Amino acid sequence: MLYVKTPEEVLDLIQNTFSAVADVEYVPLASAIGRVLAEDIAAEEYVPDFNRSTVDGYAVHARDTFGCSEAIPAMLPVAGEVLMGQAADFVLQMDACCIVPTGGALPEGADSVVMVEYTENFGDGLIGIGKSVAPGDNVIFRGDDVYPGKVVLQKGRVLGAQDIGALAAIGKVSVPVRKKLLAGIISTGDELVPAEEQPKHGQVRDVNSYMLSAMMEAFGVQTINYGIVIDDTALLSEKMAQAVTECDLVLISGGSSVGVKDATCSMIESMGELLVHGIAMKPGKPTILGKVQEKPVFGLPGHPVAAYFVAKLFVLPLVGILMERTMTQYTVTAVLSESLSANQGRAQYQCCHLAQQDGQVIAYPIRSKSGLITTLAGADGYFSIARDCEGLPKGAQVQVVVSIGE
Amino acid sequence: MLYVKTPEEVLDLIQNTFSAVADVEYVPLASAIGRVLAEDIAAEEYVPDFNRSTVDGYAVHARDTFGCSEAIPAMLPVAGEVLMGQAADFVLQMDACCIVPTGGALPEGADSVVMVEYTENFGDGLIGIGKSVAPGDNVIFRGDDVYPGKVVLQKGRVLGAQDIGALAAIGKVSVPVRKKLLAGIISTGDELVPAEEQPKHGQVRDVNSYMLSAMMEAFGVQTINYGIVIDDTALLSEKMAQAVTECDLVLISGGSSVGVKDATCSMIESMGELLVHGIAMKPGKPTILGKVQEKPVFGLPGHPVAAYFVAKLFVLPLVGILMERTMTQYTVTAVLSESLSANQGRAQYQCCHLAQQDGQVIAYPIRSKSGLITTLAGADGYFSIARDCEGLPKGAQVQVVVSIGE
Repeated sequence: MLYVKTPEEVLDLIQNTFSAVADVEYVPLASAIGRVLAEDIAAEEYVPDFNRSTVDGYAVHARDTFGCSEAIPAMLPVAGEVLMGQAADFVLQMDACCIVPTGGALPEGADSVVMVEYTENFGDGLIGIGKSVAPGDNVIFRGDDVYPGKVVLQKGRVLGAQDIGALAAIGKVSVPVRKKLLAGIISTGDELVPAEEQPKHGQVRDVNSYMLSAMMEAFGVQTINYGIVIDDTALLSEKMAQAVTECDLVLISGGSSVGVKDATCSMIESMGELLVHGIAMKPGKPTILGKVQEKPVFGLPGHPVAAYFVAKLFVLPLVGILMERTMTQYTVTAVLSESLSANQGRAQYQCCHLAQQDGQVIAYPIRSKSGLITTLAGADGYFSIARDCEGLPKGAQVQVVVSIGE
Repeated sequence: MLYVKTPEEVLDLIQNTFSAVADVEYVPLASAIGRVLAEDIAAEEYVPDFNRSTVDGYAVHARDTFGCSEAIPAMLPVAGEVLMGQAADFVLQMDACCIVPTGGALPEGADSVVMVEYTENFGDGLIGIGKSVAPGDNVIFRGDDVYPGKVVLQKGRVLGAQDIGALAAIGKVSVPVRKKLLAGIISTGDELVPAEEQPKHGQVRDVNSYMLSAMMEAFGVQTINYGIVIDDTALLSEKMAQAVTECDLVLISGGSSVGVKDATCSMIESMGELLVHGIAMKPGKPTILGKVQEKPVFGLPGHPVAAYFVAKLFVLPLVGILMERTMTQYTVTAVLSESLSANQGRAQYQCCHLAQQDGQVIAYPIRSKSGLITTLAGADGYFSIARDCEGLPKGAQVQVVVSIGE
């Protein structure tokens, strides 16, 4: 007999039951943003691969400048000029200098660069250096930034634009990433019609399959939509078996019917193992999780708001594990606009609007009478109220998970 | 003569100079996530479109239950049963009840539902009601959630999974969104080679065009990459003219050369209007913004870290204006791991790693010696130090803009 688990217990169980299954594929650098890096990336070369000037000026041996000043400049003949993007294929002898541009290579021998602002051209190829430099001044030495073997990016990271830049710098134009998983999505309920149909009296439109598909897609998971299945155990069983075979995970969002919930449980038990039957959270209690052919099968609540929270709180972390994706979730500290009561005994999740005001972020809880849509539409994020908490007063600090555009 | 502007002045100028140009297109609901909504969306019907039970139980006239108790139940004959997804096409008379499932429609006349837990079946079609209900109990009335004309989502919003759900509920299967803009990307510099090539001595790989393309793509902008242009004013002028004609905005990331910067300025001045020449920020000072054929042309710094910040801080807000996208940026409050000095007079931007520790988020500044890559690779976000600030002590609170996977 399975008892109702706390959200923490469910997350632990997911962590301990499932592991990475997504294969590795190589994608061109230009399509790698947002993908999950599948291997640590180490540099294979030096960046820069030459001693590089960070200023426009004159490459020198530093000690040729020691003791000089504007009044008594060090006089150095120009031994050459390095052009941008060109090799400095000569050696700079002592008592000489060499013109280098910002980003240009230093000739061998030179250990520092004097900024052009501190020099004076005396003509006849003679440069007066008016300020001394120390070795290393205004130079990035070969490998200062990256050297062979240095790990630049760690596996599991979701690649951002800054990482794409780093990969370009070390010449990684083919990037090992996790293949996208495939999620099968099934909606159940005699009352559901597809969103493009006009509901008849007593019917409502299917919300969950659209919402869940969109959420999966935004998280880098492809989906197969198996449509709406009526409350018929044989039909549902058939669809579920098909989805388990074809996909990496299956999300069944239950109608309101107790029968379908029971049928989903029995099917999971007959085909695999039932792991979770009920989570102590509000909304979201009637949630089922099982393992069939080693693949996760979620039975989500039919109520869209409940399905939303279960998907955000449990399905996404599960996908993270299947893709060995480093899951990071940073929250925004906000101030509650009004007091909020809570059910003790169940962790409570609350959608909210956010607004910036006087340097603070204000969280406005979205209340509605068991709303199907208004609680979700336009929500900027959500926060939770712990299960041992009776409620939060107006002005309390809440940690909001922002979810705009995802 | 243009003087160096503060970041705030540049943002104001962008706001006052440019406006929405992106056309509207209709996309299927299944592809609308992450897109910018182009119109307010109002419901055209009621949701639910019928009085709906929120529990399994018996629909009643509430006043038939007034005064009843477990000891003295109200005895009501069952006048019918409503099936899930079916119309309740009869009228419930007084002194009778009707079986309804969770989510089922109430028959006309019924104003409340008694949960099955508070009833007893006495056989012969007689139900004993053990707990009184008030009108409205356990019912969502027609239109309680949404009614015709109610604005469900506001234009400018970047659609998330919750919004896709809401659109499904009201049958909006074709969604008006902003067309993706097209950004032209040009890298300049004699020292640059494409990322797939091995740099020769004195050369480095082009980082900016990959990084900027990826950032644009993640922000919903398509790109044309015009490749690397050497420091040749005629060539650059030709490419810029082509890019301005073909794209909605142009990003030229400068080599390190002063000549290219000057050439970019002159070209913008000869073809249009120069708006910004230098921003009081670090890194990022050598930034140019102009308007050519009413289109924005950015000259970004050649240094990748500087280009990154200029793109995040100015190019993305500009794209937001061109797409009439509601720009929301919430920051994560973090504690600085070490003290950090700053240049007074210029706003300073600093990449950092983030880590959760003892319920706090710690920001670790990524330091490097004018690093091209290490400052960016793996950065979890960034924060700013105000221009009138000399530095921040260890333990100071910073507001971090998180940028993982984007």
